[in-house]
Amino acid sequence: MNEQQRLPTIEQIERLIAQNDLDGLRRLLIDIHPADIADLLDDLPEYEAVTAFHLLPDEIASEVLDETGSLVRQELVEKVDDERLADLLDTLPMDDAAEFLEDLPDPVADRLINLMEPEEAAEVQELLAHEEDTAGRLMTRDVAVLRRYWTVDETLTYLRSLADAETLHYLYVVDGDDYLVGVLPLRDMLMAQPATTIDTIMTEQVTAVLVTADREELAEMVAHYDYVAIPVVGEDGRFLGIITVDDVLDIIEEEATEDIQRLGGSVPLDQPYFAVSVTAVFRKRVGWLLMLFFAATLTGTVMNLFKSDNVDADTIFTLSLFIPLIIGTGGNAGSQTVATIIRAITLDEVNIRNLAQAWRREISVGFLLGIIMGGMGFVRAILWHTGMDVALVVALTLPAIVIWSTTIATLVPTLAEHFKIDPAVISGPMISTIVDATGLLIYFSLATLILGL
Amino acid sequence: MNEQQRLPTIEQIERLIAQNDLDGLRRLLIDIHPADIADLLDDLPEYEAVTAFHLLPDEIASEVLDETGSLVRQELVEKVDDERLADLLDTLPMDDAAEFLEDLPDPVADRLINLMEPEEAAEVQELLAHEEDTAGRLMTRDVAVLRRYWTVDETLTYLRSLADAETLHYLYVVDGDDYLVGVLPLRDMLMAQPATTIDTIMTEQVTAVLVTADREELAEMVAHYDYVAIPVVGEDGRFLGIITVDDVLDIIEEEATEDIQRLGGSVPLDQPYFAVSVTAVFRKRVGWLLMLFFAATLTGTVMNLFKSDNVDADTIFTLSLFIPLIIGTGGNAGSQTVATIIRAITLDEVNIRNLAQAWRREISVGFLLGIIMGGMGFVRAILWHTGMDVALVVALTLPAIVIWSTTIATLVPTLAEHFKIDPAVISGPMISTIVDATGLLIYFSLATLILGL
Repeated sequence: MNEQQRLPTIEQIERLIAQNDLDGLRRLLIDIHPADIADLLDDLPEYEAVTAFHLLPDEIASEVLDETGSLVRQELVEKVDDERLADLLDTLPMDDAAEFLEDLPDPVADRLINLMEPEEAAEVQELLAHEEDTAGRLMTRDVAVLRRYWTVDETLTYLRSLADAETLHYLYVVDGDDYLVGVLPLRDMLMAQPATTIDTIMTEQVTAVLVTADREELAEMVAHYDYVAIPVVGEDGRFLGIITVDDVLDIIEEEATEDIQRLGGSVPLDQPYFAVSVTAVFRKRVGWLLMLFFAATLTGTVMNLFKSDNVDADTIFTLSLFIPLIIGTGGNAGSQTVATIIRAITLDEVNIRNLAQAWRREISVGFLLGIIMGGMGFVRAILWHTGMDVALVVALTLPAIVIWSTTIATLVPTLAEHFKIDPAVISGPMISTIVDATGLLIYFSLATLILGL
Repeated sequence: MNEQQRLPTIEQIERLIAQNDLDGLRRLLIDIHPADIADLLDDLPEYEAVTAFHLLPDEIASEVLDETGSLVRQELVEKVDDERLADLLDTLPMDDAAEFLEDLPDPVADRLINLMEPEEAAEVQELLAHEEDTAGRLMTRDVAVLRRYWTVDETLTYLRSLADAETLHYLYVVDGDDYLVGVLPLRDMLMAQPATTIDTIMTEQVTAVLVTADREELAEMVAHYDYVAIPVVGEDGRFLGIITVDDVLDIIEEEATEDIQRLGGSVPLDQPYFAVSVTAVFRKRVGWLLMLFFAATLTGTVMNLFKSDNVDADTIFTLSLFIPLIIGTGGNAGSQTVATIIRAITLDEVNIRNLAQAWRREISVGFLLGIIMGGMGFVRAILWHTGMDVALVVALTLPAIVIWSTTIATLVPTLAEHFKIDPAVISGPMISTIVDATGLLIYFSLATLILGL
């Protein structure tokens, strides 16, 4: 589906290595986009991935290093000379080098930083001094800055003199104290006459993020304004660097991954699937599972409450036949609602101000669903020959529990958001568990009322 | 946290409208980024949103129209003159105009297209002829194309003569038959000497997407290669237009929304939360809920299977006390796993080739979790005075069901992906329901064995 040259297969690469045709392999690899080489390495056995990596020239190798998955990275860090790794890190944009180093054990990272060029090492250490997941960690300083009194012609000469600036999509204008005073899309400069001065064509309204801004916040800003890059300023307003849209794409994907994992009732892994140890996954999941376990034992307590000497075994058994159905339906309706509501909160569509409106919608949907479910439950009960009264209890419980669970699933995340708790920690399993215990209370209360237990 | 001027509040705007100070309101609005004006309109009552919109000059109004939520859009389509709307659509990039029109009822869209400039109307209709969610719908044709034999100087003159091209981050080079022959970042042209010809500085390896490519596929490519724009070619290889990264950001957010809604066990809404009618939401949810309902009735059937005359009511009741706990734990462990696995599949980390490895991981995690849950279940049973034998049944059932549910949650989505079924349709509720019925089978089988029912 794309027009690029066809990528070599894993088998092709393995054959070349088996034949020891390393020149052939090098020729094959250097024509491929580094992101694709990284994907190939991820799929190769470890030994062969390292062999292929050794063949790459520095400017390709550094990008491949940046793009590979964490398993191959670990392997490369172990098998490649520290000196070469440090050289490769020197050629990477400093934000990518910092990202690479922060995932390594501290002693290894320190060793590599000591081997880097002093200037690059200082820049990386400065980035790493910022908190994780803030703009400060993600920005790059390799960016061209202009002065307002330069002419277009002077600026072009200056830009041509630069060896390499990470991005030139926007040009930033600063004053003598490094305060950001304007921004200029590269294309606007290109369109202007050579003698024009920068301050007559630049835009003075610049949107910037603070160096301490959370990465989620800055991703939202870039997406909101359709920017290709956003400048980063310090607490004192001085220009520090820029964050580019490719980093924002990664952030949006990672945040979606976290939200999905939380919705499943687990602490996010933060790393690729296979890079996390089994015991780490265990720890991320056991907390929620235990909490939900204790909540679930409440359902047993509820059932015990309704046990009395004058209830015959058959009735109890018949009623218990419907427990999985009832708590399952409540839990599923709750999961559907909570997934919709949490996403709507994330996208800023639902909040405390329109909570009433959202709740009304969900109750209406719950009512419609409840009628259908109640009807089906009634039929199912009659087919199991439970008798009319139990069928009636089931038919009334199902709509009640569906409305109840859509209510819980609407209110809990919205209120959580209002009280500054990340609504994404409200998971499907959590809503199900709340609904399970309270749903059985509804069921047995209706049973007591109608069957006169 | 950002350095832009503070946005006016809703109250400020309402006050200006109440005082009929429309000039003041206009002055206030025209200084704001159109994306922010759109947000303000979304928060205003309908009448006031329309009033404010009427004050905006065309070039701002068109961008605001493009950025507003669907409720305000509906209002504007009703209240603003068709002629003005058509003018605004003329000034929008054609991909945005097409996106706007495709959400309108057909007769309204046709009326507006007829009022647009013939050239723009033809272009929009051409875009709308492509399938929804394909590259053809999302591309823009407002892009500068070069010829390989032009010099840098000639190219600059040509670019300065263009009224407006949507993006100039990359320049595309085509031959006389419109075949794409090269690409050139704007910055590289800027760095080159004026007399250089384009073909000496362009890159001949161009990655393009087919006009029929699915939007998810193209979003992955742009994210993979860190592009700011990607060219679109026809089936015959001719250059048709480009897709820019801001559209890709929107796609990634929308796809994440769909995945999250599916994971909650609901058909994705495709539209903002409040824009979908209650009955539409009902229809999106009822199918899954009914399917899960029928599956859940199986649990009752399983329980009926184990009912025999020689089982005393107390034992049945005691066993049923643990049903919510057992199916809840199984369902929750399954939800945790399925969320992780589906995301790993989406990010291409887990597939059929490493399924065995993923399964081994999940079983190991399930084993650790199962031991903890089994131990807790045992204690809980003893505290409820169930007797040692029931406690043993519970203690053995919990690890078995946790391992079973992590297995199901790993295998089902991976196999679905392998057989070309979107794994995201495998929801948490679906896994829970499969685990519910089969889990009770495990529970009652162990009970039969140990209690000798």
